[in-house]
Amino acid sequence: MVLVRKPIPIEEAIQKLAAESKQLSTETIYLEDSFGRVLANDLYASHPIPSYTRSPYDGYAIPSISTSKAGKGHSVFLKIVGTVGMENEWRGTIKEGQAVKVMTGSPLPNGADSVIMTELAKVVERPGGKYIEIRRPVSKGENVSQIGEDIKENQLLVKKGTVLNPGIIASLATFGYKNISVTRKPKIGIIAAGNNLSNLEEPLQFGKVRNSNTYMLIAQCKRCRTDSYNFGQIGNQLNNGIDKIRSALNETDVIITTGGISVGDDDDMPKIYEELGAKVLFNKIAMRPGSITSAAVIQNKLLIGLSGNPAACYVGFELFARSVIKMMLGQLKPFIKRTQAILHKDFPKPSPVTRFVRGKVSFCDGKIYVEPSGKDKSNMVSSLLESNSFIVLPAGTKGYSAGSLVDVLLLEDEDGNEQWL
Amino acid sequence: MVLVRKPIPIEEAIQKLAAESKQLSTETIYLEDSFGRVLANDLYASHPIPSYTRSPYDGYAIPSISTSKAGKGHSVFLKIVGTVGMENEWRGTIKEGQAVKVMTGSPLPNGADSVIMTELAKVVERPGGKYIEIRRPVSKGENVSQIGEDIKENQLLVKKGTVLNPGIIASLATFGYKNISVTRKPKIGIIAAGNNLSNLEEPLQFGKVRNSNTYMLIAQCKRCRTDSYNFGQIGNQLNNGIDKIRSALNETDVIITTGGISVGDDDDMPKIYEELGAKVLFNKIAMRPGSITSAAVIQNKLLIGLSGNPAACYVGFELFARSVIKMMLGQLKPFIKRTQAILHKDFPKPSPVTRFVRGKVSFCDGKIYVEPSGKDKSNMVSSLLESNSFIVLPAGTKGYSAGSLVDVLLLEDEDGNEQWL
Repeated sequence: MVLVRKPIPIEEAIQKLAAESKQLSTETIYLEDSFGRVLANDLYASHPIPSYTRSPYDGYAIPSISTSKAGKGHSVFLKIVGTVGMENEWRGTIKEGQAVKVMTGSPLPNGADSVIMTELAKVVERPGGKYIEIRRPVSKGENVSQIGEDIKENQLLVKKGTVLNPGIIASLATFGYKNISVTRKPKIGIIAAGNNLSNLEEPLQFGKVRNSNTYMLIAQCKRCRTDSYNFGQIGNQLNNGIDKIRSALNETDVIITTGGISVGDDDDMPKIYEELGAKVLFNKIAMRPGSITSAAVIQNKLLIGLSGNPAACYVGFELFARSVIKMMLGQLKPFIKRTQAILHKDFPKPSPVTRFVRGKVSFCDGKIYVEPSGKDKSNMVSSLLESNSFIVLPAGTKGYSAGSLVDVLLLEDEDGNEQWL
Repeated sequence: MVLVRKPIPIEEAIQKLAAESKQLSTETIYLEDSFGRVLANDLYASHPIPSYTRSPYDGYAIPSISTSKAGKGHSVFLKIVGTVGMENEWRGTIKEGQAVKVMTGSPLPNGADSVIMTELAKVVERPGGKYIEIRRPVSKGENVSQIGEDIKENQLLVKKGTVLNPGIIASLATFGYKNISVTRKPKIGIIAAGNNLSNLEEPLQFGKVRNSNTYMLIAQCKRCRTDSYNFGQIGNQLNNGIDKIRSALNETDVIITTGGISVGDDDDMPKIYEELGAKVLFNKIAMRPGSITSAAVIQNKLLIGLSGNPAACYVGFELFARSVIKMMLGQLKPFIKRTQAILHKDFPKPSPVTRFVRGKVSFCDGKIYVEPSGKDKSNMVSSLLESNSFIVLPAGTKGYSAGSLVDVLLLEDEDGNEQWL
């Protein structure tokens, strides 16, 4: 079999993957287990917040009109007639010249239209009981949280496809969502191919490298908040490779392979695709590193073939596998966050095709800077150590000087982009 | 008991917490389980990378001198004498006029000092066998990865206190670190205090709010990559509260309470501190929201008392509990990432004390912008929905106009700061 490899644009590769990345089924989980999960339906406010007029502070609920004569050295005195928020709750109606002690969150008693904070109300003993002394006029509605002031009844609270974070989870708890419906996590099978791979526990052998990509991919899946399953290595036995992929197909939603995808004689993945009758979506992308990134569909499941070079494998995962996982999760923003940054160092290399340079983004004085991390060759492990972004250098550019504005993709961003570009 | 509350500066509160936040013991885990964990000791490169001279591409290993006459329309032809990277490995020495086929990652055969990529070497049949045609001179060392070029032997690879990400995990796999030593996760106990709390499954009752803070704190702990344990609620039974905290002390490393910490009559936490003989570190901080954030030490364990107001509780966790957790994990950068951003909207309110406004950071044209999210009152749930940062407005400032540079704390940043400021 002679494979004719026609490079396609990155956008086209993304489109082909998107067409095969169906949202998975949903499952119901407890709210306390929902951090990082993706909401499966729109949720609404079942009541207004606050649901009753309440005090936002510890203080005294008063009719504001009683304070109109306070100020300019003149105090008014209001009689404390009760307390709200204790076991023996006060349920009367406050009259002019009276005050009721309230706690943070207490409902405002009838007759009160404002609250004066504890710090501004001195308690004094006077004939007939305890009074508060007020030295300035209080306006109507002062320190009162009105019904629906924060959130209105039936307001859309959280859209489906939202990744749940602590603030959103707090809001859902407020409305009593004890159980919520989320998209189940895609199961990712990981397989490493190549004759020159040794296991971590084996001593270093001449001509071999340890299989680091499997461990990297497991961690990349975890960063995407999904689960991966290690199906081990494919050596130079074609049948063994076919069997491994067949069994992975039964147990997972997506299979990611690393290595064996190039045009070298040892590269078995194209043969395996053919043996399995896979529909190849693409086998070359106009980009560097990772130009040999491939994808195929078998039994309605995606098989993503990444390079065996660590850095090319890393880039291929973040651009393609990450987007696939997030589309299957139904995320509103499945694509990696793209923004611009100021290049901190010259990058003199021309880019005949779109180039992704592992970079380190930093912030200073309200600006975003980026510089290449480590040494940028596609087989370099060191460049991954400090990388938190990719610098995107478009095809046909001749290099960039420090100070240029360049596109960057933020690897550790949780928010994402709605569109690829 | 009358509590005199003296507000202390935020920096002092952080210092007092740091003095009580000892690094926890270590545990050994598999590398594949290490994403997000914190490395407990420095790790070094046990060998150089590459450990042998190798080809970074598929191509042909050649003595470069054989190509000196190529170019300007003149081709040279080198005889293919073998292949490296297949089962039947070629182990001879390449002579002038010869070439050996190599795969990506193959060791360079003896006698070769450079590699020409497959795409640039046309295979032609000639008398005596197969040859490659080369049209330009190749220089010595071209397309050859030298020993130690990426990483030198014994080089410090990853510092202790580093949070493990996919790139670092890949590097550790390369050096055969199958098991690694990490700091164990702190166990955080969560207790909600207050008489006006109802459970999620209860129907809404007048004068009560659902206990949203517990769920928020569980998620905030998870965002810090640690585990939390929900010890339920403390109502108005002082003894019940004391018992709950006693049992939580036996099972956790840190206890976080929310509510009951103010100066209201219902606020039992100060009494509980006293009953338990806790050493109070502070009970008021010069900040808003969350000025009543408290901390105490009982049985060498930290008890962090956060406000019952959702937003004040949220801020208190991110500023203080988050730092404590990361210090106990031994993280190199335990403090929340602080940078500057351009304020996108006017913020006209003066700040008598340091104010933390829930904000939404966005990027555009190489600049960082921030604007307040939702409605900024300390009891507002809505402001938490879209918040990914805090805007820090220093004490004594009179408000800021759009375009001003302000400090921001990035909640979703994984990197952190070495120092609080």
